[in-house]
Amino acid sequence: MKADIRKIEEDYTDVAPESSELIHPKIYKGLVGVYVDESLITYIDGVNGKLYYRGYALRDLCEKSTFEEVAYLLIHGTLPSNSEFIEFKDLLIKERSIPDNIVTLLKSFPRNTTRIELLRTAISALSLYDPDDYDYTEQANIRKGLRIVAKMPTLLAFAHRIQTNLPLVEPSEDLSHSANYYYMMTGNRPDKDFEEAFDDVLICHADHSINPSTFSCRVTVSTLSDIYSGITSAIGTLRGTLHGGANEAVMKFMVNEIKKKENVIPWAEKKFENKEKIMGFGHRVYKTWDPRAEILRDIFMGFFNKAQDGELIDKIPNHEQDIHDEVDYIIEMTEILTGYVIKAKGIYPNVDLYSAGLLHTLGIPTASFTPLFAASRSAGWVAHAIEQLKNNKLIRPRLRYIGEIEKNYVKIEERY
Amino acid sequence: MKADIRKIEEDYTDVAPESSELIHPKIYKGLVGVYVDESLITYIDGVNGKLYYRGYALRDLCEKSTFEEVAYLLIHGTLPSNSEFIEFKDLLIKERSIPDNIVTLLKSFPRNTTRIELLRTAISALSLYDPDDYDYTEQANIRKGLRIVAKMPTLLAFAHRIQTNLPLVEPSEDLSHSANYYYMMTGNRPDKDFEEAFDDVLICHADHSINPSTFSCRVTVSTLSDIYSGITSAIGTLRGTLHGGANEAVMKFMVNEIKKKENVIPWAEKKFENKEKIMGFGHRVYKTWDPRAEILRDIFMGFFNKAQDGELIDKIPNHEQDIHDEVDYIIEMTEILTGYVIKAKGIYPNVDLYSAGLLHTLGIPTASFTPLFAASRSAGWVAHAIEQLKNNKLIRPRLRYIGEIEKNYVKIEERY
Repeated sequence: MKADIRKIEEDYTDVAPESSELIHPKIYKGLVGVYVDESLITYIDGVNGKLYYRGYALRDLCEKSTFEEVAYLLIHGTLPSNSEFIEFKDLLIKERSIPDNIVTLLKSFPRNTTRIELLRTAISALSLYDPDDYDYTEQANIRKGLRIVAKMPTLLAFAHRIQTNLPLVEPSEDLSHSANYYYMMTGNRPDKDFEEAFDDVLICHADHSINPSTFSCRVTVSTLSDIYSGITSAIGTLRGTLHGGANEAVMKFMVNEIKKKENVIPWAEKKFENKEKIMGFGHRVYKTWDPRAEILRDIFMGFFNKAQDGELIDKIPNHEQDIHDEVDYIIEMTEILTGYVIKAKGIYPNVDLYSAGLLHTLGIPTASFTPLFAASRSAGWVAHAIEQLKNNKLIRPRLRYIGEIEKNYVKIEERY
Repeated sequence: MKADIRKIEEDYTDVAPESSELIHPKIYKGLVGVYVDESLITYIDGVNGKLYYRGYALRDLCEKSTFEEVAYLLIHGTLPSNSEFIEFKDLLIKERSIPDNIVTLLKSFPRNTTRIELLRTAISALSLYDPDDYDYTEQANIRKGLRIVAKMPTLLAFAHRIQTNLPLVEPSEDLSHSANYYYMMTGNRPDKDFEEAFDDVLICHADHSINPSTFSCRVTVSTLSDIYSGITSAIGTLRGTLHGGANEAVMKFMVNEIKKKENVIPWAEKKFENKEKIMGFGHRVYKTWDPRAEILRDIFMGFFNKAQDGELIDKIPNHEQDIHDEVDYIIEMTEILTGYVIKAKGIYPNVDLYSAGLLHTLGIPTASFTPLFAASRSAGWVAHAIEQLKNNKLIRPRLRYIGEIEKNYVKIEERY
């Protein structure tokens, strides 16, 4: 017997019986174009290629602010006063260390796993050690959120160094969030140029409105679950190839497939012939340059000019080529690819194209690109979890059943 | 400067530039009434109080089937042939054990945490040991999903016994899924009555269309993330008090607040006077008896009748009262409460009211009620993850920004 679909529309209202909520029989597959809520966090102007955090243009924040201040801005909604900011930075520094049990946990894991799986597990485990685990007030949620933002670089740097058999570098108390992250990962304190470039990468990834990981964070906390559950969901969601991982893919095709600048155009032509997508280009929202790509390109160009002038000397630890070669080689390939794809297809670069080359030039291992996205985005996830809980409504859509009902159960011995 | 809302509506299309997808400026807060997809898994008839898995009425499945067969039905879409079912059950038995590292992990955790946090962390960690971790084919996803369904009772029984300082009970290979779960948790092999009742509780919780945990699972896998990430999100989402935990709350007010049958009506009257909700009653979907509540009530009544006839003797291990007192006391309080609430408010019992009393009577510790929900629902989560991936579209709604833009960044020293 076929289910009476009309009846389902009328009856299976996902609301309390007394409500007369309207039913929408159209299927919004993927929820494309469906607004789930109002927000005061981030505005993406896809036509003009602009991005604003709490109303401030991203470029202003990259040029004038720091990741710590951007995290404050996203989470608290306003820029801090001097004393608020000192307190906030002190808290982030104090919370950089992770419990010994979590270090043991990271060391116990198999070595051949993605760092996102390690991070998902470690963040889930961290909730067990949080003194505010059972306090669900907004103040406690902010404290828990800041602990997550503060500890994520430590978890990721430790995971990286354990997996590559390097000694752990304990967090420093006198470095900025970005400089310390860079230091724990590479073992080297960055100079000013590197610190600022790395900080800008973190700022550019700190939020992007309701991308899939942020949405899953909001869905999870909308049951009044805790913020660690929300961030754990977000990290798991980021693992998917349709969301995280694109800048890793960019680096891989640059290094393993294109290799040198003469190959760029033939490689791209072949991709288009085969109707394949080129990672690092195009975006659901932007119809022009992704503003994050533009900002990171400018920083990258700055490095290129300094390299040309001989001002960058041996800055990258653990790279086979010297810095001049690295910068020349990656930026030139990226520029040729950008020019060709825009001209051939009218598709513009997104953040992943330029973050890949820039991070590589800064000496960040490719396997740490997606984890770095998670570490930056944790500020946005926390901000969205807190916004969701401020004026919460359980997020629960509907599924339309299209199968049969009242099927006859036949005993297994009589089934065929 | 205020953002131009009209412009946002037109421009910030969450779709590729070439698409002319319609924008819906209405805010569907909580996505109430929004259909996110079509499904062939579960149909809830809220008006007639009926629930169907793959078209089969829940009551038929409780009376004639087993949890293993229901898991097969939900995940594969059809009832198994005899040989398919033998293979399926063998696989579930073989996969009951968990890696030593995960046991060490469970033992390393602080003792005062919820079992849902332990489960969320342990399932996330399990992916690191799954031989199919990097295989994203449907067949590999089914294998991974079955491992999760098979291992969840072991994880939960171990977590329970570690937290209460009891020796671990290794999984048995000759018991059914339910009997083995009961045995690992309590240390006792259940007799036929207990096994069947416990099995029916698991079947009743195996799926319920797109509840919030299932939705978060589908959101996570829609980025093409892995099934462990999906289930980890679901468990974290279940932790919220608006989703899981209601039957634990029912048991707590029965035991700690109502205590004896004379107190039921005065207690309920006071709740209504204070405009408080009584857990275990009412449901967004059902406008009458929740069919799961009816089924579990019938089983509970069967126990009651046997107790009255003196047929149940000392069946419950580790209970202070003997079985007759337990059954009498809980069922009578539950029945009085049900009668009163329906008459006073026209609100009907949901699954949590009767699962609470029944599980308690079967000797299940209250702190294991929500974990047991997760263990049962894992079958549904796996089925939904696989359905989502069969015809996937990234689930990404929109947020409508309502704040200002182009705010002027003022240096910190000039801020006040």
